[in-house]
Amino acid sequence: MNAPDAALATALPRIDATRLWASLMSLAGIGATPKGGVCRLALSELDRQARDLFVRWAQEAGCTVRVDAIGNVFARREGSEPGLAAVATGSHIDTQPTGGKFDGNYGVLAGLEVLRTLADHGIRTRAPLELCVWTNEEGSRFVPVMMGSGVYAGAFSLEHALAATDRQGTSVREALQAIGYAGAAPAALADGAPRFGAFFEAHIEQGPVLEDAGEVIGVVVGALGQRWYDVVVTGLEAHAGPTPMELRRDALQAALPLMQAVDRIARGEAPHARGTVGWVQVFPNSRNTIPGRVSFTVDFRHPDDAGLARMDAALREAVAQVQASGRVAVSVEPVVHFPPAPFDPALLGRVRAAAARHGLPHRDIVSGAGHDAVYVARTAPTAMIFVPCKDGISHNEVEDAQPEHLAAGCQMLLEAMLETAGRAA
Amino acid sequence: MNAPDAALATALPRIDATRLWASLMSLAGIGATPKGGVCRLALSELDRQARDLFVRWAQEAGCTVRVDAIGNVFARREGSEPGLAAVATGSHIDTQPTGGKFDGNYGVLAGLEVLRTLADHGIRTRAPLELCVWTNEEGSRFVPVMMGSGVYAGAFSLEHALAATDRQGTSVREALQAIGYAGAAPAALADGAPRFGAFFEAHIEQGPVLEDAGEVIGVVVGALGQRWYDVVVTGLEAHAGPTPMELRRDALQAALPLMQAVDRIARGEAPHARGTVGWVQVFPNSRNTIPGRVSFTVDFRHPDDAGLARMDAALREAVAQVQASGRVAVSVEPVVHFPPAPFDPALLGRVRAAAARHGLPHRDIVSGAGHDAVYVARTAPTAMIFVPCKDGISHNEVEDAQPEHLAAGCQMLLEAMLETAGRAA
Repeated sequence: MNAPDAALATALPRIDATRLWASLMSLAGIGATPKGGVCRLALSELDRQARDLFVRWAQEAGCTVRVDAIGNVFARREGSEPGLAAVATGSHIDTQPTGGKFDGNYGVLAGLEVLRTLADHGIRTRAPLELCVWTNEEGSRFVPVMMGSGVYAGAFSLEHALAATDRQGTSVREALQAIGYAGAAPAALADGAPRFGAFFEAHIEQGPVLEDAGEVIGVVVGALGQRWYDVVVTGLEAHAGPTPMELRRDALQAALPLMQAVDRIARGEAPHARGTVGWVQVFPNSRNTIPGRVSFTVDFRHPDDAGLARMDAALREAVAQVQASGRVAVSVEPVVHFPPAPFDPALLGRVRAAAARHGLPHRDIVSGAGHDAVYVARTAPTAMIFVPCKDGISHNEVEDAQPEHLAAGCQMLLEAMLETAGRAA
Repeated sequence: MNAPDAALATALPRIDATRLWASLMSLAGIGATPKGGVCRLALSELDRQARDLFVRWAQEAGCTVRVDAIGNVFARREGSEPGLAAVATGSHIDTQPTGGKFDGNYGVLAGLEVLRTLADHGIRTRAPLELCVWTNEEGSRFVPVMMGSGVYAGAFSLEHALAATDRQGTSVREALQAIGYAGAAPAALADGAPRFGAFFEAHIEQGPVLEDAGEVIGVVVGALGQRWYDVVVTGLEAHAGPTPMELRRDALQAALPLMQAVDRIARGEAPHARGTVGWVQVFPNSRNTIPGRVSFTVDFRHPDDAGLARMDAALREAVAQVQASGRVAVSVEPVVHFPPAPFDPALLGRVRAAAARHGLPHRDIVSGAGHDAVYVARTAPTAMIFVPCKDGISHNEVEDAQPEHLAAGCQMLLEAMLETAGRAA
């Protein structure tokens, strides 16, 4: 740390790590599972309790609260120049059915700790600050996922989102009314929701990279684009005993090099690309019957669309080679195409500078998973901050993170937001 | 055909192809399915009806009938030298739940047609002839499969077989009593059941080899031995997005080369070996989760035990290579080891000679599947005769075979049995 940096670090307000942890544990009590996780599905009664707690905390920190038509909650702290667009942060507080304490919740409560710290120190910013709780990020109860931020950014319409139903037939519209979070504010940017001047999201990494490298802060340079496919290989089922090898049309053996290609193609686009076959179904799936049909999924991710296009082409070439054998038919159906979301270099620079200022081991990293910030990035300069999670495990009741890492990420968030919003004279 | 052969062929009695076909269609009427197949599970009421029809037909052809303690039915036609061991043939008349008209039934009714033809022509053999209906070959309702011939040959005990229960809890013992086929004759050779002088079984191929080669008669030189395994590859499940390729412990990608090895190992033991992965289970089997565990089956078949041992060693070497990566654990559990059953060269020579005599395209072939003859071969000189089935498809309601092929196989059976039993002066 050079001398001016050290002076600046000392001069900046410090977040309260103990209060942040206590808030995380309080929120985790709503929907706590016996195994130490959280089950708090979007727009459930437990979600209402968690939202109510958030609203009370935000008001106690001096914020005003508004709720929009898709149930997104915004806590606002005015700046000295009200005409400026807000510098915002936030994430979500709904969880997977067997989710953890930190996914989403950390991003919301890190933002709350920033607002509380600024209030404690009587620091006013030039631009207003906003803290967002986005509705239904997980998509466990209602599809599409990242619903609140998706409506905001125009990825799909408010009507589409409100009409979505859970397995009991309850619609998002009904669930919002039932828990009292069908707000009056416009939800979509196109309908008049305010555009942010900048957006930050702090999040646990949900992967093993930081822990593996012994680093504390991930400066998230962007989110991987995604292309998903359903592949079906059709051969001919036959008895395993009487059918000689050379007369077989074995759908599984034909599918194996394609599944291998998915992995190989991603490794050929190192270091950030991903290729995964996560789901496989063999028909008729009988020990002594040659498989007649194999279906499997392909999940390709890459930081840029040209890379995704190369992966797509390589997959199709591998399929053509298998088809050329003439012994099986292969169909490839694209099911999802999510463009990559590059984050804002200026905002990222502020996160990176803050980590350097504190001498925290950090690295640039990409987000492999979807986050609300990915949608918000379509509308405003955006950045994410990752902190390590234990063994890279998330979407699991054993999800865990170290208090000092969570505090460090929160401090980075404070400093980057403060620099972006500007300190009032 | 050379001149003496032609003379002999002319002198031999000819089976009645029309009667054979009519009998097949009559028997197929008992348990006929709408799609043209047969559902006649072992020891069911339909099996009783089919057995009763068989017994009536056998008695009409001049045979005496005995039933043993496991329900095997034997129709006996005395020879001129009663002290000689019987020359026997037969198969089974139980079917798969969605079985066909020919599997098993053909072997029984081809034998019946041989007995009828000899009766029509007033031909007496030196050795007695026996026609067997073996209980529960398919194993669809009761396990173990090939139950009647297995008890006979001592593969397992009569008590073990009688105690087996179906999914409703009905035992073989109860089912035999219910349909009136709990016979008095000893079932096991070890308990005094008579040893055959020779045994023949005619059967549809249940594979594509004869049809593919345009041949009519398969001279079955033996049945493949079998070794079956359960393999489990354990890695670590993780999110497909945040987990870089180099930090993965992907159980599926690790399993793929093992599944390929199963196919490659069998091709390395051409032409008769088989290697099949028929069943695969991926955990958690989610589109965007790296598989943490993959289970699959291995079915190896080979004409000799040394070959099976080589296949076993090659599989274990492939497993060791995957284990050496240190990223996954692999367990290999053997679940079945069935030794190969070579058939009798002298009997096979008689089938081959009969095919040559009639100018029928024929080839030596191995049986990849299990048959009653495989057990009987442990106790007496045995041979099988295959005829083509349409598209190699069996254990299916669309199972089909050409009448002229069925007739040709039956004629081969007659000539080989007659030569083996000897014609009385």
